[in-house]
Amino acid sequence: MSAIDLNSDLGESFGVWRLGDDEAMLELVTSANVACGFHAGDPSTLRSVCAVAVANHVCIGAQVGYPDLAGFGRRYVDMDPRELRDAVLYQLGALDAFAQVAGSEVAYVKPHGALYHATIDGAAQAEAVVAAAVEYDPSLAVLGAPGSQLLEQAEASGLEPVPEAFADRAYLRDGRLVPRSHDGAVLSDPAEIAARAVRLAAEHEVTAVDGSTIVVAARSICVHGDTKGAVEITRAVRDALDNAGIGVHPFSV
Amino acid sequence: MSAIDLNSDLGESFGVWRLGDDEAMLELVTSANVACGFHAGDPSTLRSVCAVAVANHVCIGAQVGYPDLAGFGRRYVDMDPRELRDAVLYQLGALDAFAQVAGSEVAYVKPHGALYHATIDGAAQAEAVVAAAVEYDPSLAVLGAPGSQLLEQAEASGLEPVPEAFADRAYLRDGRLVPRSHDGAVLSDPAEIAARAVRLAAEHEVTAVDGSTIVVAARSICVHGDTKGAVEITRAVRDALDNAGIGVHPFSV
Amino acid sequence: MSAIDLNSDLGESFGVWRLGDDEAMLELVTSANVACGFHAGDPSTLRSVCAVAVANHVCIGAQVGYPDLAGFGRRYVDMDPRELRDAVLYQLGALDAFAQVAGSEVAYVKPHGALYHATIDGAAQAEAVVAAAVEYDPSLAVLGAPGSQLLEQAEASGLEPVPEAFADRAYLRDGRLVPRSHDGAVLSDPAEIAARAVRLAAEHEVTAVDGSTIVVAARSICVHGDTKGAVEITRAVRDALDNAGIGVHPFSV
Amino acid sequence: MSAIDLNSDLGESFGVWRLGDDEAMLELVTSANVACGFHAGDPSTLRSVCAVAVANHVCIGAQVGYPDLAGFGRRYVDMDPRELRDAVLYQLGALDAFAQVAGSEVAYVKPHGALYHATIDGAAQAEAVVAAAVEYDPSLAVLGAPGSQLLEQAEASGLEPVPEAFADRAYLRDGRLVPRSHDGAVLSDPAEIAARAVRLAAEHEVTAVDGSTIVVAARSICVHGDTKGAVEITRAVRDALDNAGIGVHPFSV
Repeated sequence: MSAIDLNSDLGESFGVWRLGDDEAMLELVTSANVACGFHAGDPSTLRSVCAVAVANHVCIGAQVGYPDLAGFGRRYVDMDPRELRDAVLYQLGALDAFAQVAGSEVAYVKPHGALYHATIDGAAQAEAVVAAAVEYDPSLAVLGAPGSQLLEQAEASGLEPVPEAFADRAYLRDGRLVPRSHDGAVLSDPAEIAARAVRLAAEHEVTAVDGSTIVVAARSICVHGDTKGAVEITRAVRDALDNAGIGVHPFSV
Repeated sequence: MSAIDLNSDLGESFGVWRLGDDEAMLELVTSANVACGFHAGDPSTLRSVCAVAVANHVCIGAQVGYPDLAGFGRRYVDMDPRELRDAVLYQLGALDAFAQVAGSEVAYVKPHGALYHATIDGAAQAEAVVAAAVEYDPSLAVLGAPGSQLLEQAEASGLEPVPEAFADRAYLRDGRLVPRSHDGAVLSDPAEIAARAVRLAAEHEVTAVDGSTIVVAARSICVHGDTKGAVEITRAVRDALDNAGIGVHPFSV
Repeated sequence: MSAIDLNSDLGESFGVWRLGDDEAMLELVTSANVACGFHAGDPSTLRSVCAVAVANHVCIGAQVGYPDLAGFGRRYVDMDPRELRDAVLYQLGALDAFAQVAGSEVAYVKPHGALYHATIDGAAQAEAVVAAAVEYDPSLAVLGAPGSQLLEQAEASGLEPVPEAFADRAYLRDGRLVPRSHDGAVLSDPAEIAARAVRLAAEHEVTAVDGSTIVVAARSICVHGDTKGAVEITRAVRDALDNAGIGVHPFSV
Repeated sequence: MSAIDLNSDLGESFGVWRLGDDEAMLELVTSANVACGFHAGDPSTLRSVCAVAVANHVCIGAQVGYPDLAGFGRRYVDMDPRELRDAVLYQLGALDAFAQVAGSEVAYVKPHGALYHATIDGAAQAEAVVAAAVEYDPSLAVLGAPGSQLLEQAEASGLEPVPEAFADRAYLRDGRLVPRSHDGAVLSDPAEIAARAVRLAAEHEVTAVDGSTIVVAARSICVHGDTKGAVEITRAVRDALDNAGIGVHPFSV
């Protein structure tokens, strides 16, 4: 029987500014990538997201990012790899305090925004993230793009690599995502997205933009929750998976 | 036989800006109040200070402060007590990551600057700091001013309260410090400061500004290291304690 | 014939985080208190708000605040008065660059949040804000609470003091606002608020919570735009003023 | 008769952290690149540096940088060009407030650190800096590397381009600097540096690392002041220029 994890970026509010509907999403997903305060998130948000995640049996991961509130971590910052490693370690420890107080712990790491992209091909950045994870807790998993430097180095370092897929993004024949700037890169029809999610979970396949069928060996599907429509899409995905008899569980279970 | 701890604020550099001579001080003190990144300190500084502290068998404490780099944590910030508690918990977790990677752990909490002063008489602020410490690790000690709300609430919550004294500050008859703005509030003669430190450690007494002898029941003496002269004073204090046969050990041992 | 100004806090988004509907509000108000980047606002938001304000013939004022993004400027920060003065001057210059590029200029200053409250009774804080305004541009107006230290010192320093009223807040007999923590402190019925605005503009009076009629000699009415309901209330206020034949113009015209 | 300008990065302290000896340097240089608060500098530092600069008849320029205190502006940040333009405009306005209060005004722009390097070859970054300068004040000069995109675009936009040289850096035959990572990239002998400064000012030449003589058509020489040795080198440079009868004046005069 098939099983899949649903992960989402959460805890991205900051002070007075709200982003996304964490409570609604935490009823739908099974893994929460919680922002750690460098590109988003503040201490009280970390606390409340961790508490609700635990109440919903959602697994907590560290959504680590560049120190860049103004750019929401979406700007590449050319940090020295040792400083990047230390920035990741700092974020891991900070979030874990809240995860532990909530009765859980940080179970995995997933880089955010520009750091996510930097660790796809950037060996130095991937190494920095992995090094921080290894020294903090060798039992951490690492969630990221299939074939990325990040997952390769995680595996080489003894961390569990967890590849993810996107049900709402168009794929190229080579398994990469169609860049957001292209027409049709992002799907918006809940039924279509839900159907792709089911196929990804059950058959590990998706139809690429050229019509070919490609294999995407993902153990988690990333969903977004920062708009009202996104919550509805996530609900459609979750319902479709449930109805298809696919077990929706944290990958780390 | 007498014993005393020497504590000092360390790890207060930030990025390109250096403050204090952490390496020199870590050869002299036994407890390091390490800044956690909110009022001073950056991830790579946290790492290096923790590593050197462990190499010198110096105990690591969290020098928690207000989120105020521009004011170095010396400005009172009227934070909601729950937000203050969460800010303290965040700092505890972040520093502990580096302490643990260095092979140790955070053993105590000491508020910095305006937060230190706020927790002397401020019940809400003291409660916030203590609450974060209790939920993070009930075996943490709390270092602060004798008779402060902070130490009273720490004790009431089951944390070990550790009162400290200042060998380089003039005392009032009631045991409080002469405010810095008064003449003679801060002593500068290394020999005199060292002699006061020995008397504080051996006899728990000091001569107040009115000439009276007062009891200061401190288990740690706070020394400063952010100027060249301060390092020399600390060396004089350490030498005098050693020569007097007073054991200089972390209070937490 | 009566005339009144409508002012509102705008430009309070930061990076990816949106707050309020600046475009809708700039069609309704006549003075924009634009956040300057210390407690809210980022450079690109400053640019766009100034541009839209100028297009709508809305007067631009500097909504100066404490350096406190995490607290949205709502936390009192015990800054040295000279540092506060310099922080205000910095914000004035930064915003004015965008106002001038948009074809206008900063015409007034209004403190935000905790700084607004600090300058009601705090002579040192009021003096700091006024000193920065005087040295930046002696033709600046200062918008604030009637009877505040801020307006008194503005007048004493040769700046134009502009008292404001709140159509959606309950008043005490002595002319102060009922604290937000009290029941009935904030009104929510658009029709009632609009009627109070018309009476404030036309007769300079409002009914206090004890039923007495009090004089509120305001030249501007502050309205809020950070919720959908708030925009509708502002629209009701504006329509009522227009229908009553009251001229709605910037106070600085 | 020959004339030259001496420029230096100043105002780079932040809060409690001091960097460089601004007062000593302002007796030696003729143009001050004043940090504007994004990568270094705080409002009160801006005020004091501008005041001392004016007292010493030193010209004030805006040392604009990336919003990166933690990295001192030395990390490339991949900002959207419009956001970069707005960040530069913000800094210009903020600094100019202090320059004007001191009785002067911002006369030129010089990017700092990673932004300086990005604008050598990066057309988009150079365009962003120049666009902000043009819209703020078309009479601004732009100080930078000879042959850089920055100076080319400044000239194309009607701003005065001012090329600078480094008396303490080794040059390649093509006029570029030897990278800092190479042996011999940075000179340290005050007499040698002073002699090169005189030759640069009087003859617009310098000997490259391969022994060839190259032309460096600079109107300003950049000197550093962030170490004690650096101040002494600057003093040697200034004395040598004075003794050689070379007029040392702001380029903008």
